[in-house]
Amino acid sequence: MNLNDARKIIMPAHSASEDSTLHALPKRVFPRTPDLSGSNVEAKREEIRRYFHATLDRYEQLFETLQGEEAYFKKPISLRHPLIFYLGHTSTFFTNKLMLAGLIKERINPKMESMFAVGVDEMSWDDLNTTHYDWPSVDEVRAYRLKIRNTVDRIISEVPLSLPIGWDSPWWTIIMGIEHERIHLETSSVLIRQHTLEHVSAHPAWRPCGKSGQAPQNQLIHVAEGTVYLGKNKTDRTYGWDNEYGSHVAEVAAFQASKYLVSNQEFLAFIDANGYGTESFWEEEGRAWRCHTRAEYPTFWIRQGAEWRLRLMTEEIPMPWDWPAEVNYHEAKAFCNWKAATSGQSFRLPTEDEWYRLYDVAGLSDVPHTEQAAGNIHFDYFASSCPVNEFPQGEFYDVVGNVWQWTETPIYPFEGFDIHTHYDDFTTPTFDGRHNLIKGGSWISCGNESLKSARYAFRRHFFQHAGFRYVVGDTAVVQHDSHYETDKLLSEYAEFHYGDRYFDVPNFPKSLAELAIAAMGGKPCRKALDLGCASGRATFELARRFDEVTGIDFSARFIGQGVQLAGTGVLRYTLTDEGDLVVYRERTLTGLGLDAVRHKVAFYQGDACNLKPLFTGYDLILAANLIDRLYDPAKLLTSIHERLNLGGILLLASPYTWLEEHTKREAWIGGFKRDGESFGTLDGLNEVLGDRFKLIQGPKEVPFVIRETRRKFQHTLSEVTIWERVA
Amino acid sequence: MNLNDARKIIMPAHSASEDSTLHALPKRVFPRTPDLSGSNVEAKREEIRRYFHATLDRYEQLFETLQGEEAYFKKPISLRHPLIFYLGHTSTFFTNKLMLAGLIKERINPKMESMFAVGVDEMSWDDLNTTHYDWPSVDEVRAYRLKIRNTVDRIISEVPLSLPIGWDSPWWTIIMGIEHERIHLETSSVLIRQHTLEHVSAHPAWRPCGKSGQAPQNQLIHVAEGTVYLGKNKTDRTYGWDNEYGSHVAEVAAFQASKYLVSNQEFLAFIDANGYGTESFWEEEGRAWRCHTRAEYPTFWIRQGAEWRLRLMTEEIPMPWDWPAEVNYHEAKAFCNWKAATSGQSFRLPTEDEWYRLYDVAGLSDVPHTEQAAGNIHFDYFASSCPVNEFPQGEFYDVVGNVWQWTETPIYPFEGFDIHTHYDDFTTPTFDGRHNLIKGGSWISCGNESLKSARYAFRRHFFQHAGFRYVVGDTAVVQHDSHYETDKLLSEYAEFHYGDRYFDVPNFPKSLAELAIAAMGGKPCRKALDLGCASGRATFELARRFDEVTGIDFSARFIGQGVQLAGTGVLRYTLTDEGDLVVYRERTLTGLGLDAVRHKVAFYQGDACNLKPLFTGYDLILAANLIDRLYDPAKLLTSIHERLNLGGILLLASPYTWLEEHTKREAWIGGFKRDGESFGTLDGLNEVLGDRFKLIQGPKEVPFVIRETRRKFQHTLSEVTIWERVA
Repeated sequence: MNLNDARKIIMPAHSASEDSTLHALPKRVFPRTPDLSGSNVEAKREEIRRYFHATLDRYEQLFETLQGEEAYFKKPISLRHPLIFYLGHTSTFFTNKLMLAGLIKERINPKMESMFAVGVDEMSWDDLNTTHYDWPSVDEVRAYRLKIRNTVDRIISEVPLSLPIGWDSPWWTIIMGIEHERIHLETSSVLIRQHTLEHVSAHPAWRPCGKSGQAPQNQLIHVAEGTVYLGKNKTDRTYGWDNEYGSHVAEVAAFQASKYLVSNQEFLAFIDANGYGTESFWEEEGRAWRCHTRAEYPTFWIRQGAEWRLRLMTEEIPMPWDWPAEVNYHEAKAFCNWKAATSGQSFRLPTEDEWYRLYDVAGLSDVPHTEQAAGNIHFDYFASSCPVNEFPQGEFYDVVGNVWQWTETPIYPFEGFDIHTHYDDFTTPTFDGRHNLIKGGSWISCGNESLKSARYAFRRHFFQHAGFRYVVGDTAVVQHDSHYETDKLLSEYAEFHYGDRYFDVPNFPKSLAELAIAAMGGKPCRKALDLGCASGRATFELARRFDEVTGIDFSARFIGQGVQLAGTGVLRYTLTDEGDLVVYRERTLTGLGLDAVRHKVAFYQGDACNLKPLFTGYDLILAANLIDRLYDPAKLLTSIHERLNLGGILLLASPYTWLEEHTKREAWIGGFKRDGESFGTLDGLNEVLGDRFKLIQGPKEVPFVIRETRRKFQHTLSEVTIWERVA
Repeated sequence: MNLNDARKIIMPAHSASEDSTLHALPKRVFPRTPDLSGSNVEAKREEIRRYFHATLDRYEQLFETLQGEEAYFKKPISLRHPLIFYLGHTSTFFTNKLMLAGLIKERINPKMESMFAVGVDEMSWDDLNTTHYDWPSVDEVRAYRLKIRNTVDRIISEVPLSLPIGWDSPWWTIIMGIEHERIHLETSSVLIRQHTLEHVSAHPAWRPCGKSGQAPQNQLIHVAEGTVYLGKNKTDRTYGWDNEYGSHVAEVAAFQASKYLVSNQEFLAFIDANGYGTESFWEEEGRAWRCHTRAEYPTFWIRQGAEWRLRLMTEEIPMPWDWPAEVNYHEAKAFCNWKAATSGQSFRLPTEDEWYRLYDVAGLSDVPHTEQAAGNIHFDYFASSCPVNEFPQGEFYDVVGNVWQWTETPIYPFEGFDIHTHYDDFTTPTFDGRHNLIKGGSWISCGNESLKSARYAFRRHFFQHAGFRYVVGDTAVVQHDSHYETDKLLSEYAEFHYGDRYFDVPNFPKSLAELAIAAMGGKPCRKALDLGCASGRATFELARRFDEVTGIDFSARFIGQGVQLAGTGVLRYTLTDEGDLVVYRERTLTGLGLDAVRHKVAFYQGDACNLKPLFTGYDLILAANLIDRLYDPAKLLTSIHERLNLGGILLLASPYTWLEEHTKREAWIGGFKRDGESFGTLDGLNEVLGDRFKLIQGPKEVPFVIRETRRKFQHTLSEVTIWERVA
């Protein structure tokens, strides 16, 4: 590798306002994401200003590769806006976020800002909507950009700054805008690479690597088992997106990983082996993608007679066989499956955890502020990929840099994940199991993108400057739950059982469990049954005292929440705020002080009116808000003594909300006139529990609140009676 | 009339436990309903005991008219239980009510009590249910009756008694049981009268009047206008049923009333004039009844060749032409319509108020305790009707006694109506406009039935020992509202607006009105608009300060509640307690301190998104929980300044519960992402109200609670913003 060559290519643009006397940083490297701590406030202000201008300059320079106005208005690919949108979009993003932060009071150009607000970029997951756009001219957008640039520049001069800059600082939002523009620097470069050649031209600031040759023979390198620590906390010194926060610790079993990224040369063998045409190599989703697109080779490859060429951002070149193959997840995965099928070894992509293990064993660290990176990243060398054997990192090459690397891991929130209020949908819509993480960054990844902590994820069929490295590992890939419960009822119950207190009403299942435990007195507390456990809070709470607690509910979806908490310790859900607006909640057993009892609980799906015989021998049975939801409450109550030890306790709680939709009128045990007189449910309980039970406490009303929206709640009183089995 | 004869017929039975030395009351008259006040507790205890035994004796004596066992088990009419039921029923009633009162702890015979609890008697409104009954034998029921009698007797001996006896006294419930048995004494006598003759026989204790002759010529007597005072309060000295309580004052215009009850003779002219066959004489409901039953003459009349005979309780006699005609309301009404048609005068039945006016002008008072009554009532003379010219009362005859008299008035609750918790369905199911009051009592009416304050009502097609007196009056008959709102939503809103406070949350519409009035400061307060007024509470509350308040709601059913309150001052509704069980509520403007402002309010049905132009010139517009229920909230809000005076105040309150079922998503004014950012409803309000309004107070959350059942509530926060129209 010729570093001098590389250096010549890098020509960071200098901003108009740049005052060279203020700059302590060398200009050789494209400015890194700022350190948020420090003591020199004015120096920090200028560092951020320089970061801001350098970012906008570089972004605008990207558009200089476009040839003529038409290049801005013609869509490179059908599912994306034309590039004019992306030119405006990053500025509008500033306006929106600065308004949220209270840094500006009024929109700068409401019409443009409405047009440029919501795009369909490679970070996005929606299909392009069909709104008709009447785009402004390139000059108009450039004038708009300048206006925003001056506004932000003024804000950077005027807004009080204190260090370190935290989530709540208005400066966080300024950096958010800059980092957002850096993301689009990369994604717009991909769009330009997808534009037809006639619309683009080479540019001295975007010169690709000139080096290529025979690809090295790839090989597997053993990686010893080890622990990886992922995540970020809010005192970290660099800006991060929401998905980076929280923590995740994993024991990574030993595995083997390819020394190099898979090169074009190595990938060609898969094509030649009819890999694209062999269904069995493709996962189901990949098969559908291939069938839909009829792909026969990677998207940036061009077949010219017997020759292969490669499309770069602004030009086509003869296939550089030693550069990394750029593919989507499906293609990478099919390649691995082909290798597994032909070798008998368990080839696959690395997990995110394994990538971090590689990072650790390669001895890497974040891109230094004043020196060049250890890989082809952050524009430090080329405006393109380069050979896969150019940047050794420990025993490996390109653990970071060159191209992003697909993983097996759909993005998921770490425990402690938190959403920044000024960008509450940066990540959450991608927690759907359909967006896989890419790691390591590409030649153009800069700012936050280049950090070890960065976590970007794309739909598996999307293209970026992304390739892959394969691993051989015998351990099954663990998929992390990324699900936010959005079903209205389940979310409401999650909050009801594990969430906040409203109207000062204490947690209901917890209160009942406490009443039940108190009622046990000195009785044996071996086994308890939480019948109609719903989301399972009382099941866990009873396990504080009982050796073993069974939670049973008719709804498998409800007990799913208990099962998930017992298994993963975490439960996530959205809550309706107002209209379509939602807020995100994460609850953990640790946070609830229940982590120590999770091994004592077991959840089962079951019908309280037709319970399996094995559910017996309990010292306590708790049935909360259950009896008025059963189709035959008397059937349960007349036989419940068979499941309860003599002397055992039965706690019933119910608002007695009898409804025909749940319980046919003839099966109600109270709440009607009988023999001419009012016959309440408590009368019915006395009758149906008969001589086998003695009422030892209650009736007493215990309130509960179910949150429906930010302002609307169900507020109910449940009548609690505690009975002792006496016969 | 031969009073000696009459006296001989009356032979009150003496109870087994009767101790003649304790009885100060003469035995000549059947015991009257006891005076609930007094100072001699032991004497009162014995008076009640005597009242109890005398009532049961007389009731059992009634069954002595039955011939053989079959008479007990064969239904006299298809829609009634056989008489065995009624023999058991009055005892079971004691058990039920004594249990409610806590005077007994356990049922005496659960099986019989289940059978005998709910009957279909003439007080009832339901069709006979089809349950199969396996009746016990007469001896078994007699033994059961004895058991109850002894139990009650013991209770009378043992339960502490303090005077006066009020609603909450357990003694009230004892007297309730006795009065209930007295009602059945009368209704069972009607059933026996409906039994075929073979099942009954004459009995010396039930000897009918032996006197009859030519009927007197009836005539109209002028009654001067006057005020009548109806109702009873809880400090009254006699037992009353729920419907008697509260008060009602009426100015009765002058009218003419027939001197005598309509005799069989007088009624015959109607039959002979083909009255039964002439459709135009019959009201719609009466026409349906006649068509269904094919009646051609009164039910107790028998046509034998050219002769007419009359069925009495135990025998048939040649038609006593001077006795009152016994008919149902429909027949009485048709008779009046015939008389009106043939005379051109406005003949009709009296209203309840007019009957009370007759009572007053006749100078009547309640049956004396130790002397005979002034009419054929309370068994004081005969076990049947007697000639209509036997008992003069002032200028009239038979204002009380002989037979009940149908009125034009469906029973309705007086203001202040209250329900006794031990018999909560005595009257309420008859507040349906289909049960007309009968007044005056018959020869067998005794105890409470004989009191001036008594109010009994039957379906208009039912038969009792009932006839009628006609009046000629030019004033229209006022029908009183007897409606208890039972529609779930309307009832809930009635309670929400006018009812109790739950969870200590102050009344919501009242709070908003107070906020609005406070916000007015020194501004003119002429006209206010309560838009989306629902049940109208805020409309009334604003009228405390404004000269004129308009309440508008899309739902005519909701504004009906405001209209009713403004018109009648009272609103009644049921609330679901638990299952089918309900409680009754009555709210009055007086009770709410709003009586003085009722003339300032006006309610209109209207669409807030399409209001008529006349609704303008307001100093205040209040829109509570409205905007998120409109199909086009922006349409209202962008034009609302046209209805508000400059400087006027707009108070908006809403929980912003946007739902597609009310407002299509595209019409929401907030609660969604716009241009990529959260756009709340308050943002939308700011935008849509624009420069014409200035936010002068809020946002502030004001809570409200809607009661769904005794234990289940909606508890919601409504965001209040107060805006001043500035342009």
